Amino acid sequence: MYEKIRVIQYGCGKMGRILLRYLYEKGAEIVGAIDTHPDLVGHDAGQVAGLPVRLNVPISDDAEQVFADSDAQVAVIAISSLMDDVYPHLERAARHGVNAITTCEEAFYPWTTSPHITNRLDRLAKDTFCTLCGSGYQDVFWGNLIAVLAGATHQITRIEGLTSYNVEDYGIALAEVHGAGLSLEEFDRQIAQSESLPSFVWNSNEWLCARFGWTIRSMQQELVPTTREEDTPSETLGRTIPAGHATGMTAIVTTETYQGPAIVTQSVGKVYGPDEVDRNEWTIQGEPNTTVTIAQPATEELTCATIVNRIPQLLDAPPGFVTTDKMPIATYRTYPLQFYLL
Amino acid sequence: MYEKIRVIQYGCGKMGRILLRYLYEKGAEIVGAIDTHPDLVGHDAGQVAGLPVRLNVPISDDAEQVFADSDAQVAVIAISSLMDDVYPHLERAARHGVNAITTCEEAFYPWTTSPHITNRLDRLAKDTFCTLCGSGYQDVFWGNLIAVLAGATHQITRIEGLTSYNVEDYGIALAEVHGAGLSLEEFDRQIAQSESLPSFVWNSNEWLCARFGWTIRSMQQELVPTTREEDTPSETLGRTIPAGHATGMTAIVTTETYQGPAIVTQSVGKVYGPDEVDRNEWTIQGEPNTTVTIAQPATEELTCATIVNRIPQLLDAPPGFVTTDKMPIATYRTYPLQFYLL
Repeated sequence: MYEKIRVIQYGCGKMGRILLRYLYEKGAEIVGAIDTHPDLVGHDAGQVAGLPVRLNVPISDDAEQVFADSDAQVAVIAISSLMDDVYPHLERAARHGVNAITTCEEAFYPWTTSPHITNRLDRLAKDTFCTLCGSGYQDVFWGNLIAVLAGATHQITRIEGLTSYNVEDYGIALAEVHGAGLSLEEFDRQIAQSESLPSFVWNSNEWLCARFGWTIRSMQQELVPTTREEDTPSETLGRTIPAGHATGMTAIVTTETYQGPAIVTQSVGKVYGPDEVDRNEWTIQGEPNTTVTIAQPATEELTCATIVNRIPQLLDAPPGFVTTDKMPIATYRTYPLQFYLL
Repeated sequence: MYEKIRVIQYGCGKMGRILLRYLYEKGAEIVGAIDTHPDLVGHDAGQVAGLPVRLNVPISDDAEQVFADSDAQVAVIAISSLMDDVYPHLERAARHGVNAITTCEEAFYPWTTSPHITNRLDRLAKDTFCTLCGSGYQDVFWGNLIAVLAGATHQITRIEGLTSYNVEDYGIALAEVHGAGLSLEEFDRQIAQSESLPSFVWNSNEWLCARFGWTIRSMQQELVPTTREEDTPSETLGRTIPAGHATGMTAIVTTETYQGPAIVTQSVGKVYGPDEVDRNEWTIQGEPNTTVTIAQPATEELTCATIVNRIPQLLDAPPGFVTTDKMPIATYRTYPLQFYLL
């Protein structure tokens, strides 16, 4: 006998629509769908996700009512990148005793970047006996990919990572906070010297330390402009970035540990030139050295698939805010068998 | 309070010496060392391994006596690549109730290539309450590396692997069974048409199917000569391979499953030209596609480190022949804490 896992899709934007389709195709029961965008409210979640069937689950902007009106086991929250923004949504799921997994990048390892709200959520989830966690692309490609290679390593002295994305794909707001289009003087004044938020590889460096049992001695972030020797047209900015001006930036996060190994991760976000593509490259230095390269990762699909593959482990985890460093690796599940509860 | 894990190093050749050093550096207690090579017998295991200290453990050619004379928890067996050859050594460890892990490539997943002896060992290990398994480079780079990427994948339709090694590194016997130096007509007659042993990626394809819960519908192996357009000097053969002759071969193992996905793995073993290097590349096809490349893996060190990192999981596993598809991923352990029993 099987029982479908009952899921609320919380956020039905670009990622939410992929998540809805993956959830449905893997055999989950969509019991609710939440979004506040006027173009989405009232529309059938199945139609919005491009499914070949109607789910007869209208997207609602009344999140409280959706949680009150179903006995969901899981909420999949795809709303924002920062803990401050996702907090009320995680809190709502936890208050209703519903396990929640979120694409929020900071939630991947928020214990030190947002300790107060993470601990409050942890406390609340333990009181209501549910589990909260963050996952996505970084869970595999900045996390367990490195852990699996480390498992073949005798002594690690240093881990170097490089991840690169095209800010053209994410709209004007992101392009501007990356300093795209600024002269180097403007970049220095407006970006490098300003109080900046930690890059998401800050959180993943901390995740790696937790995974390896390392204690952090220091964390540093440096923001460096990226440039090209040719002019770089930008659709998002609506103009061409002159040669030598910033096309974006690299956030370099350096983590030193008391156990010895350092983790230095570069997160490059810029307007790409014609020959540039997304990259994800990591080198473990030590005995021996190992370098891994992922060519042009499909970050959105990889994020959504990882989230869905994590759900059985989310249900299996103890109550609390349980970051995925404490879980087994996300596991591919063949449609549809393993996705049902026994 | 800590207790060092007591280990017998069984086989003190090229791999055994690296293993001895890794074991010692990670805090294991070397309680016995076995090898039959006259150059090694009687010599101190620490000296043979190049350690800065004497272990006062002489390498012995009397394996029975070494097992009788210690209360080892683990035997690390680095002797041969095939189950038929490693069987008496695994049997000896199991008969003495000593957990054993071996570099034997076939032992990585021997359930269908050597079912009779694997089941006998499984039965014996359950009777004596110990665990046997095979691990090494393939555990991570043909196994869990793919499993970790699969965990970020929604639907897998096909997995393609390519692994390449230089037969120059492994002596004349290996070069000859790879057909290095033969004309294409000779290759066809002597290699392609002959009854050949399964390539080791046969076993790793089966491991992947076990890991993903897939049932095998068919397994096929094809042997294809590799050639170059230039002459290729070979130190191992002691001559130059003419352009167009076989420099070695590719074993292509195709695994079809009832669940749908196919696994096609190419194992290339040849005399390298000046521009060729070791490779390990895998592509998961489906939604989405993901390609991973490992540049020039240090296969020997990676094998030994994986074996040592697996030991705590070997001790933690239930009795029997437990292939590593049933274990968590091999885990990097920081010197020396986690290597001690609580």
